Amino acid sequence: MAKLVNVPADVIRRQIGSVFERWGMSKEHSDMSVHVMVETDLRGIDSHGLGMLPMYQEWMTLGLLNPKPDIRVTRDMGAIALIEADRSLGHPPSVIAMRLAMKKAREFGVGVVAVGNSNHYGAAGHYSLMASDEGLIGMAMTSAPSRVVVPTFAREPMYGTNPIAFTAPAKRNKAFSLDMATSTVAFGKVQIARRARKPIPEGWALDDQGRPETDPVRAIQFRRATPLGGNRALGSHKGYGLAMMVEILCSTLTGSWVAGRSFDGKRPDGPRRKNVGHFFMAMNPAKFRDGDDFGNELDGLMDSMRATPPIDPAQPVLMAGDPEYAEYERRSKDGIPVTDTLFEEVREVCKTSGAKFILQD
Amino acid sequence: MAKLVNVPADVIRRQIGSVFERWGMSKEHSDMSVHVMVETDLRGIDSHGLGMLPMYQEWMTLGLLNPKPDIRVTRDMGAIALIEADRSLGHPPSVIAMRLAMKKAREFGVGVVAVGNSNHYGAAGHYSLMASDEGLIGMAMTSAPSRVVVPTFAREPMYGTNPIAFTAPAKRNKAFSLDMATSTVAFGKVQIARRARKPIPEGWALDDQGRPETDPVRAIQFRRATPLGGNRALGSHKGYGLAMMVEILCSTLTGSWVAGRSFDGKRPDGPRRKNVGHFFMAMNPAKFRDGDDFGNELDGLMDSMRATPPIDPAQPVLMAGDPEYAEYERRSKDGIPVTDTLFEEVREVCKTSGAKFILQD
Repeated sequence: MAKLVNVPADVIRRQIGSVFERWGMSKEHSDMSVHVMVETDLRGIDSHGLGMLPMYQEWMTLGLLNPKPDIRVTRDMGAIALIEADRSLGHPPSVIAMRLAMKKAREFGVGVVAVGNSNHYGAAGHYSLMASDEGLIGMAMTSAPSRVVVPTFAREPMYGTNPIAFTAPAKRNKAFSLDMATSTVAFGKVQIARRARKPIPEGWALDDQGRPETDPVRAIQFRRATPLGGNRALGSHKGYGLAMMVEILCSTLTGSWVAGRSFDGKRPDGPRRKNVGHFFMAMNPAKFRDGDDFGNELDGLMDSMRATPPIDPAQPVLMAGDPEYAEYERRSKDGIPVTDTLFEEVREVCKTSGAKFILQD
Repeated sequence: MAKLVNVPADVIRRQIGSVFERWGMSKEHSDMSVHVMVETDLRGIDSHGLGMLPMYQEWMTLGLLNPKPDIRVTRDMGAIALIEADRSLGHPPSVIAMRLAMKKAREFGVGVVAVGNSNHYGAAGHYSLMASDEGLIGMAMTSAPSRVVVPTFAREPMYGTNPIAFTAPAKRNKAFSLDMATSTVAFGKVQIARRARKPIPEGWALDDQGRPETDPVRAIQFRRATPLGGNRALGSHKGYGLAMMVEILCSTLTGSWVAGRSFDGKRPDGPRRKNVGHFFMAMNPAKFRDGDDFGNELDGLMDSMRATPPIDPAQPVLMAGDPEYAEYERRSKDGIPVTDTLFEEVREVCKTSGAKFILQD
């Protein structure tokens, strides 16, 4: 197993910031990306914070990221807007988009802002939480750049893990906060099983003939995740359908999907994703309900669910977001656990970008 | 197996209309409900069309339905509105709500209308299709009145099948049209297995100790469906989370969820649903994209998916809505298959309501 060292959030903040500075990112954009990434690490979503930096560096080296993007609102009519991200790293246009959606929600009751020509934006839940932090309902989706999920009845992977996040503000409880890939699991979980030398459950992944694959090493080679549901009998057409909803709202609505070559150029007969698109929505519950009625009744709903008799008394019924809130508290105090592998990868990023390696300062 | 007789859509239309007339429903409301129900039968969703009439009659007899509701828009601000359904059968306020959401989408780019104090509204997909029929993106959700789904880690059912429908208009293809319960399956599928004397797949239902139940007779006794995903390892927390999103948008946003007694009064310690709420959204792709760009690129996405190499050449990759479009064509020509059991149930409805039984005219 990998060795873990706890690093204070502020050190990670400075480390990422120093890399972005070397890339030539503006202070404003860098601050936005750093904030989203470190908040995500604090919430325990290791796959979407600092852990993404080596991949971002790779895209930077390949010329896929524009460190000095001209992020522009290209359409703004009533309760909707469209943003051109100019190949930016995903966080800055997404923070701008969600803020604009929230402004529109305050004015019109609901606001929708879509972002095109963007890149990976981290964890979808960060953006929906921006809304609930200010008393609004938030929703965030993104198309995912790599093709790893197999449509129901298909043999080839055709789209990404296309996540959906939805957050609603309660009065007494922390916000309801759902952040889910529309695949059964994200590939990170298969990697964890591989390192632990454990088989994966039937239903997570397929082989190249469309049969369930339970060996994590082979599953990683095949790179064929199932849509939520796992197979047709257990509802994988629903996970596939939700993923297509995300694709339509993020890619088609922003002009980010074109037929033709695949993203990586390796599957010439499939579609490729020209770029990554995002979709943000905010709604103002105060336009629908009086005073604290919405928050109080959401508390009632959450309390009812938590009070459901559990199968195992040691594992109570949870609400979406509970594990992340607990982790946030723990990591804010104890620091963010970083594996020795990631230390080395970040050291490499520093070498490539010319930034100082300060994780171990 | 049940005997089936094909009945022309128009006969079913007149049969349902004659019952609603006896209830004292206005011609306008009756026409709305009849249209939604028969369209749903034509699309092959037998559980949500004429098949619901016996249940509606039962609710009518119990005084749960108001046949002469005063359906009012109680809030209307910018891009959102709230409708009070006055205990109406769900279809009329829902048709009114979706029309209003569509009007707002044309003006503001997006429109959201929530409906409170309502009842069963049939198939969610009918309402999202209303939007795509006029070139808009549509979304519809509803809370479901009976508690049949078990939260992840829980032993007791706490909420309904809470469906999500999403429809987007293409240019060449029929609209993408997803209409899914957030449970692994609806209970109707367990009933079908029971009649066929076949075990159900592990993952559909639980016993009263939270263990997988594969005997359909016992599964129907226990009435404990799983959230989409089936169990925690395969992602049931995602199905549960989506169902809570639906509950929040349909119940909390409209004041339709209160803690206290259960809906049927049989579970005094659980929550009850005071009434049923719905959520409708429409978006105008023409505000985001030029001319036919949205429809053309959605065609590209749909064509790409359909062209994915299938596992079994006899079962090509589908898009959400395909089976219903095929069924619609078949049933418009051949009539709607009605089981002998349903014939008898409708005959009873006619006796109770005083309507003439014309299904066999």
